[in-house]
Amino acid sequence: MRLSPRHPRYASLRVRARLAEAHRRGLVVSEGLIAQGRGEAFDYLLGERTSPGARKAERAAAEWLLAARRPVISVNGNVAALAAEEVAALARAVPGLAVEVNLFHRTGERARQVADTLRAAGIRKVLGVHPTATIPHLPSDRAKVDRRGILVADVCLVPLEDGDRAEALRALGKRVISVDLNPLSRTSRAADLPVVDEVRRALREIAQQAERRRRTARPSRFTPFDARATLGDALATIVRALTRAAARSRIAPPRRRASPRRSRGIPGRSRRTP
Amino acid sequence: MRLSPRHPRYASLRVRARLAEAHRRGLVVSEGLIAQGRGEAFDYLLGERTSPGARKAERAAAEWLLAARRPVISVNGNVAALAAEEVAALARAVPGLAVEVNLFHRTGERARQVADTLRAAGIRKVLGVHPTATIPHLPSDRAKVDRRGILVADVCLVPLEDGDRAEALRALGKRVISVDLNPLSRTSRAADLPVVDEVRRALREIAQQAERRRRTARPSRFTPFDARATLGDALATIVRALTRAAARSRIAPPRRRASPRRSRGIPGRSRRTP
Repeated sequence: MRLSPRHPRYASLRVRARLAEAHRRGLVVSEGLIAQGRGEAFDYLLGERTSPGARKAERAAAEWLLAARRPVISVNGNVAALAAEEVAALARAVPGLAVEVNLFHRTGERARQVADTLRAAGIRKVLGVHPTATIPHLPSDRAKVDRRGILVADVCLVPLEDGDRAEALRALGKRVISVDLNPLSRTSRAADLPVVDEVRRALREIAQQAERRRRTARPSRFTPFDARATLGDALATIVRALTRAAARSRIAPPRRRASPRRSRGIPGRSRRTP
Repeated sequence: MRLSPRHPRYASLRVRARLAEAHRRGLVVSEGLIAQGRGEAFDYLLGERTSPGARKAERAAAEWLLAARRPVISVNGNVAALAAEEVAALARAVPGLAVEVNLFHRTGERARQVADTLRAAGIRKVLGVHPTATIPHLPSDRAKVDRRGILVADVCLVPLEDGDRAEALRALGKRVISVDLNPLSRTSRAADLPVVDEVRRALREIAQQAERRRRTARPSRFTPFDARATLGDALATIVRALTRAAARSRIAPPRRRASPRRSRGIPGRSRRTP
């Protein structure tokens, strides 16, 4: 289907087309397309832009990655399809950042495809194609990691991660930075530093902040971050957006319960043919 | 992947697996999987159950379908994959209900697959496989309808419909009943009677209500329905769910803005290895 740039949802339709194409090539699985839709719904509720709270979290994420001894970013099929360029920019901005392929639905072929996509974006060293270790408390196929990457990392950036894995990483004592548009997801709630933002916007901002910080003084410690406050902020943004959207659509305001007595029949009835 | 019934999201994972499988057979397109994800997010926010407001809308929908001279239900790939049985139950409950295949991404092969799925569920007559008319104000491939179905219908039940089509049908003076989990979608806002509920729950309830009403007195007129009030109700349900979920997750309440002074550092810090 050809997309018109004048379509009200052009930007999200383009992302959708890109992901559908990655799915045809086998890079993204069916479940990944469904996950994209869930993300879209929350991004829509968040106004499809980076909130001030998310920007603060992204700045903190940049600091943590720079302060880490062994930072790693975990990349799955959706992240590679959507944001390979942004992962490459982050790898340039954070010296020593390991980039590891990490698949929920792992096959050797898909792992190679993710790695190829990352290399095409300019990332030289990609870990995790041939896993060399496992992490505890996970089904075997999802526990596979690289002993030079996630296994030994002190800070793990896990965009679009599933809840079980995020919890397992945290249980290992690692600092977990998530990127997830659902502030109520298990991943967001498990993370030490949850970034509630779209993956490309988030990685771009983290990379820019890291570039900026490196030029001044590289952080040597982990500034405390209030994970609950940032999730509360995101929820507040959604509630405000719902209230505003309701007003714009002239839908009855959400606080007031509709009473049958206030019923005014079907609006626009008069325009109908009899 | 085998699913454990003890997984906290077993029901939605089963639906997901069913749709992914329908996608492999070509019944559901990639865009349909993404749309499913968007729906899932809203269903999650609505508590994955039929709200009292939705039930009221479903009762009204049953009455409108029984009062119609020429009622039709429009069926796309996602509806066929998820709810063929429920469409069949509705066709049994509403005498004269036309069932029409209606695809956003139409190919002859997909139209046949949708029809086959419906016939396998027990529906004898399926319209729209070979479209015989077009409706105005739509791109040609999405305008195709059956001259015995949607073209002449007075009431159109359009589950999981796109906004353009819902608006075009309404502009033709038809009474549009939508089933869509997003109360802010253009489809929900275009509909005369928007049902904000999951498609299988919604069709099941409409069918049951229609069975019940037929046994007493069949409605002879269209009871007015307050579309805005029902959408406002759905928004209120979502806002309440967000507030409750925030409290359950012990996230800072959405109404209060987080202040940097309230920061308590990273929770659970002490459990870490030094």
